[in-house]
Amino acid sequence: MFFKFAFIRVIRQLANIRVKKPLPLCTFGIISPMFEYTLHSTQGRARAGTFNTPHGALETPVFAPVGTQATVKTLTPAQVKDVGASLVLSNTYHLYLRPGDELVRDFGGLHNFMQWDGPMLTDSGGFQVFSLSGTRKVDEEGVTFRSHIDGSKHRFTPEKSIAIQENLGADIIMAFDECADPNDEAYIVKAMERTHRWAVRSVEAQTRSDQALFGIVQGGVNPDLRLESAKFIASLGTPGIAIGGLSVGETKKQMHDVLDVVNPALPEDKPRYLMGVGTPEDLIEGVRRGVDIFDCVLPTRLARHHAAFSPEGRLNLKNATFKRDERPVDESCTCYTCQNFTRAYIRHLVVAKELLAGTLLSIHNLHALIHLVKDMRVAVLDGTFEEQVPAWLDRWAGNASKNR
Amino acid sequence: MFFKFAFIRVIRQLANIRVKKPLPLCTFGIISPMFEYTLHSTQGRARAGTFNTPHGALETPVFAPVGTQATVKTLTPAQVKDVGASLVLSNTYHLYLRPGDELVRDFGGLHNFMQWDGPMLTDSGGFQVFSLSGTRKVDEEGVTFRSHIDGSKHRFTPEKSIAIQENLGADIIMAFDECADPNDEAYIVKAMERTHRWAVRSVEAQTRSDQALFGIVQGGVNPDLRLESAKFIASLGTPGIAIGGLSVGETKKQMHDVLDVVNPALPEDKPRYLMGVGTPEDLIEGVRRGVDIFDCVLPTRLARHHAAFSPEGRLNLKNATFKRDERPVDESCTCYTCQNFTRAYIRHLVVAKELLAGTLLSIHNLHALIHLVKDMRVAVLDGTFEEQVPAWLDRWAGNASKNR
Repeated sequence: MFFKFAFIRVIRQLANIRVKKPLPLCTFGIISPMFEYTLHSTQGRARAGTFNTPHGALETPVFAPVGTQATVKTLTPAQVKDVGASLVLSNTYHLYLRPGDELVRDFGGLHNFMQWDGPMLTDSGGFQVFSLSGTRKVDEEGVTFRSHIDGSKHRFTPEKSIAIQENLGADIIMAFDECADPNDEAYIVKAMERTHRWAVRSVEAQTRSDQALFGIVQGGVNPDLRLESAKFIASLGTPGIAIGGLSVGETKKQMHDVLDVVNPALPEDKPRYLMGVGTPEDLIEGVRRGVDIFDCVLPTRLARHHAAFSPEGRLNLKNATFKRDERPVDESCTCYTCQNFTRAYIRHLVVAKELLAGTLLSIHNLHALIHLVKDMRVAVLDGTFEEQVPAWLDRWAGNASKNR
Repeated sequence: MFFKFAFIRVIRQLANIRVKKPLPLCTFGIISPMFEYTLHSTQGRARAGTFNTPHGALETPVFAPVGTQATVKTLTPAQVKDVGASLVLSNTYHLYLRPGDELVRDFGGLHNFMQWDGPMLTDSGGFQVFSLSGTRKVDEEGVTFRSHIDGSKHRFTPEKSIAIQENLGADIIMAFDECADPNDEAYIVKAMERTHRWAVRSVEAQTRSDQALFGIVQGGVNPDLRLESAKFIASLGTPGIAIGGLSVGETKKQMHDVLDVVNPALPEDKPRYLMGVGTPEDLIEGVRRGVDIFDCVLPTRLARHHAAFSPEGRLNLKNATFKRDERPVDESCTCYTCQNFTRAYIRHLVVAKELLAGTLLSIHNLHALIHLVKDMRVAVLDGTFEEQVPAWLDRWAGNASKNR
């Protein structure tokens, strides 16, 4: 106990924050066995592990579909399970505004409200709030912003974000952080330092012991700042660590460089979560650099815009090319969509503005990314990861941004 | 054979049409054993039977979901099967325009194109074309109309309708008929007589023996005309008979009176299909009056407008009343939606404009009507139909038109 408080003092000095209230006893470096991360195998920096959560063991690496408003768009939870998802992410900002985190709490938390019985993760609302450029104002205590729904005024602080996330009740929750424009070097330092102080405040604010709170590494694309941030966040002893502020406009090389600096500085026995990433190529390069958890809206968003991942590159199913195409989206895919429907049928649905198009393409796109990451896990376990990387990169090349 | 041709001559005189081409041998009263209707039990005029089709035996009475554009809106075929559907209807007019009946034929027909492996039914396009008031012109040979999609000019005749339906390849197809305004008594006579001549031409035009072509009874709300039409259509010997021109603005009593006249005039050994009907009450009153097959867009259309059938009446799930309602839509319902989700969650999806709301409500509404009709079948078989009618009518009262 003495050691724990001494440790807290050091952290507080590093973070330069004032203590405002007695510390809860459950913070700093106390990891419930329910959040144990077991590393089964590594190959290079790629890892295969298991992360225990109150709603089941999560086999990593893992790709999580995004259910922004307590639903993975167009899919029932049964369909989300069918595509192979084990972890689902939902957004604190959106749920706070609608239907309200207290309502979700009163309905037994997100798991019960949306009927997803596997592991869940919520973000802190930080990224969404900072995306509301023009309508938000940051100060040391928190962020004031206006709702995108009705323009009403709201305020998030680290304490508020944690309170909301405790109401939502996900298994994995995030510290409140500040994302900054990766090209504004001067501001990035400020945002990183504030993120560190807010991480400490987030950890202090936590009252539930059945949620794994992850600190978030920031620092833009500056390797020195990223290293500093990784060390600081690692020192907090949270049961997992997230890497934020990437996939926001930087180059692929910059993203890889950051991962090359950050991951080696993080503890081996904690899962690492690369927030908001990404394309098939990003997932391959991420796992290769030691990332364990990914999430991205890309598969479901593309689906609503008629686009599908495929070995031929990203397909736009509205294209007249597919009018009489008897093949499935991906002939080697085992998803419900590819096992049953032709490109011609999906194109018909798109042209006829039938919502089933979005459902079928969401099923395929999610299945593709989830199973790509599952395949990488198997390869790490059987020691063939590095030799398979070129084939995966080759297979998924052309899915980064362009539609065919 | 002699008898058959003599029979044809009589029919031709009745219908007052000129023979224009040699008659195909497979028409008039020759019913493939694959379209045998077996009547298992009756109670009053309510019937329980089995209708054999190339894609499986259809247990009647049965309610068919509508998949206008080769998809039951918002649902995968797996979900359509899960709600208990055995027969799916699709629309000739829509599929002719988009994606084109020849494309569907080249993809192995509707069953293969949309991946529904159970019995299917297509309408003749007549009702849809006559709904295009202002843009269509009827003459003795057929109807000229403009596409609702791009304004292009098209023409349907009985021969064309049958050719399209043969390309689409449903198990049950319809004669081309003329629907008339039920309040225009003079025109109704003309339309009925033309419907009879077109029914003969439709039967003549058929070349496939693996599709059950149903003649359609018309005659507005005039019992004498309906009786005349029923007798004429019955005389064609088609393997089933449809009752058209109802649920188009007449009163409930008028619909019941028509059924009371038509069904007793139809052969016992053929299924009877009441087109485009209806509400839960309509289904109860229809089965009670000897109807075997129903279809209606109501369950899926209501779902897209946030409405759900329930014993409390029709619920509008957008209503603030349901914000914290922890009950399912219908506590006694066994559908996926009611087994998993609260009214509060569905209301959240509606308010947040999430498409899953439409999917979940479509599942519930279809399940409700399909299982209501299944329950009626069981009751006819076990002899309790009449005694259960008051309870069914009471349970589903208030679902006819008003939202709560």
